[in-house]
Amino acid sequence: ANSFTVAVLPGDGIGPEVMAEALKVLDAVEKKYDVSFKRTLANVGGAGIDNEGKALPDTTVDICKQSDAILFGSVGGPKWETLPPDEQPERGALLPLRKIFGLFCNLRPAIIFPALTGASSLKDDVIKGGFDILVVRELTGGIYFSTPKGIEGEGSEKTGFDTMKYSAAEVERITHVAFEAARKRGSKVCSIDKANVLSTSVLWREVVERVSKEYPDVELSHMYVDNAAMQLVRWPKQFDVMLCSNMFGDIISDEAAMLTGSLGMLPSASLAEGSFGMYEPSGGSAPDIAGQGIANPIAQILSAAMMLRYSFNMVAAADAINAAVEVVLNNGYRTGDIYQGGDNEKKVNTSEMGDAIIAQL
Amino acid sequence: ANSFTVAVLPGDGIGPEVMAEALKVLDAVEKKYDVSFKRTLANVGGAGIDNEGKALPDTTVDICKQSDAILFGSVGGPKWETLPPDEQPERGALLPLRKIFGLFCNLRPAIIFPALTGASSLKDDVIKGGFDILVVRELTGGIYFSTPKGIEGEGSEKTGFDTMKYSAAEVERITHVAFEAARKRGSKVCSIDKANVLSTSVLWREVVERVSKEYPDVELSHMYVDNAAMQLVRWPKQFDVMLCSNMFGDIISDEAAMLTGSLGMLPSASLAEGSFGMYEPSGGSAPDIAGQGIANPIAQILSAAMMLRYSFNMVAAADAINAAVEVVLNNGYRTGDIYQGGDNEKKVNTSEMGDAIIAQL
Ligand SMILES: CC(C)[C@H](C(=O)O)[C@@H](O)C(=O)O
Ligand SMILES: CC(C)[C@H](C(=O)O)[C@@H](O)C(=O)O
Repeated sequence: ANSFTVAVLPGDGIGPEVMAEALKVLDAVEKKYDVSFKRTLANVGGAGIDNEGKALPDTTVDICKQSDAILFGSVGGPKWETLPPDEQPERGALLPLRKIFGLFCNLRPAIIFPALTGASSLKDDVIKGGFDILVVRELTGGIYFSTPKGIEGEGSEKTGFDTMKYSAAEVERITHVAFEAARKRGSKVCSIDKANVLSTSVLWREVVERVSKEYPDVELSHMYVDNAAMQLVRWPKQFDVMLCSNMFGDIISDEAAMLTGSLGMLPSASLAEGSFGMYEPSGGSAPDIAGQGIANPIAQILSAAMMLRYSFNMVAAADAINAAVEVVLNNGYRTGDIYQGGDNEKKVNTSEMGDAIIAQL
Repeated sequence: ANSFTVAVLPGDGIGPEVMAEALKVLDAVEKKYDVSFKRTLANVGGAGIDNEGKALPDTTVDICKQSDAILFGSVGGPKWETLPPDEQPERGALLPLRKIFGLFCNLRPAIIFPALTGASSLKDDVIKGGFDILVVRELTGGIYFSTPKGIEGEGSEKTGFDTMKYSAAEVERITHVAFEAARKRGSKVCSIDKANVLSTSVLWREVVERVSKEYPDVELSHMYVDNAAMQLVRWPKQFDVMLCSNMFGDIISDEAAMLTGSLGMLPSASLAEGSFGMYEPSGGSAPDIAGQGIANPIAQILSAAMMLRYSFNMVAAADAINAAVEVVLNNGYRTGDIYQGGDNEKKVNTSEMGDAIIAQL
């Protein structure tokens, strides 16, 4: 039997609760397919700070290094909000993880499930039939990690500065991912930049153009980021794959996710070269509902499915999980966040939702 | 009688048509109030390129320098899209104008007019009663204008780079504008940054906090830009004044504008220290409908009203124009872009809309 090792980092807030359901799903996959997942739990985020003194403890890094993939819950909460930014759960865990493991490619699907169009803030005629956008975000370069960066001077001269930088090689690498992904989907890439203002974007556009020549079957367009922020609101269906730098991808992927109206449903993958990756829900740690057993576990379960697909090449199992989620939604199962009070809807808690999905597997 | 000089830069596309209506409104203001507006026409954008060889001709700069304010139409169109970014109508006219005239403060209202809630992509229950956001965007600093900036190297090492930079003095200046504006509105400022990643934002937040102490009557909150892009979609009514750096303001103001559903209605002001300012519609030059006399002149007319308010201190006249627009909309007058086919609606062309507004003045 195949065997994979998974570093399990539940984190804070609803993280542990929804992670429990994802692990139950992995159990079910073990039973159905000839595979085993060796899991090692580790602290991260606020749990890292409280138990081991920092958001990304060294032991956690070691455990991740010994694993084939990281399944990540969510981090953060009011308790740690007054720490300096560098030490806070989100920033203090996520940025180092991305850097240490070379997670240059962030895949953030923004999908409206047909059963859930009601949850979107957008009018029905704008989203009729749903939409399905994949944001491909560069994750280890750009203004997040380039230097110089700092604060200097005193008084009114005190100055903060950051550097945005991309090499052709970095742009090339992420562009290939976007075009490969588009081939398996709607065959369209829209590259988001600000080439009318940023030199980084001028290079970005030039490289994207060049790489696109290798994919004559995929349609390429370019859009300025300010226009993209508008077009997402106006007509999200026009997009298939959106290719973004680190900073623009941060903003655009969150906007697109919120337009679906179901943040609790959206997984994400952060991939290194090779098969290593980190998988996490797009939503946050939702401290307000933590510990009540009512959080929506679907984003975490779909993140586990992405892990099977991208790190373990278990495409059939990943497809089966996605299909099970769809059936369960069509059958009316709803956690509180997606409950609309319709006739066909059954309100369930976190573990009931997990069980319903497993029953469909 | 008071007398003011106005540089009139109609630009491209629908610019000249909607500008004609704004000038008619200025005529009406001259008649009603004891004032005269001395206007000088000048080329800008594609019209500048075609007639004088560049997007911002020197004669245009001179005319603007001799004026008390600039009334700007809109620039750009397919004809000039293949020029290098620096020379294109938008970038080649707007960025130098901002720099030359020190237009550090960009005010971009995003308002849903009660009569037009139907035009928004957002569901009725999200926008019931409308919303009224003022984006205050820093316009002469940040990653737009800081150096170094360029492209270096060859092959896969070829690297594009930009610098984001803010001094405490720059942040202070724009923060005061935001708080002063909030005082006259909903008394709330939400400052948008990415302090968990950018040093610039750490300084930004520190300065905003300090300045806010001078405005104990105004409530301050901070929000990361990715979250702001989401919150705008989820619940726009939570915002009053949004204070943004140059880059984030570019994205956030466009998203907010599109959420209103009526881009053709939104004016903007770009202010220097003192009373000089440039006033322009938020929408583009709409080349697809140019020359047909059907464009919506309201954004241009409301831009003229902002000019009266901010550069000429003619508050009563500005209020009167705003009120006239509101009455005309309530009376059902609609250009094609905002026509929904309702019983009470009368479809009108550009000049009929201008006339209707003047009749109310
Ligand atoms: C926590 C923060 C540093 C992070 C980012 O900006 O990348 C988060 O917003 C995300 O998108 O994963
Ligand atoms: C044309 C472009 C340089 C400009 C900007 O980015 O500021 C425009 O998008 C705007 O917002 O006025």
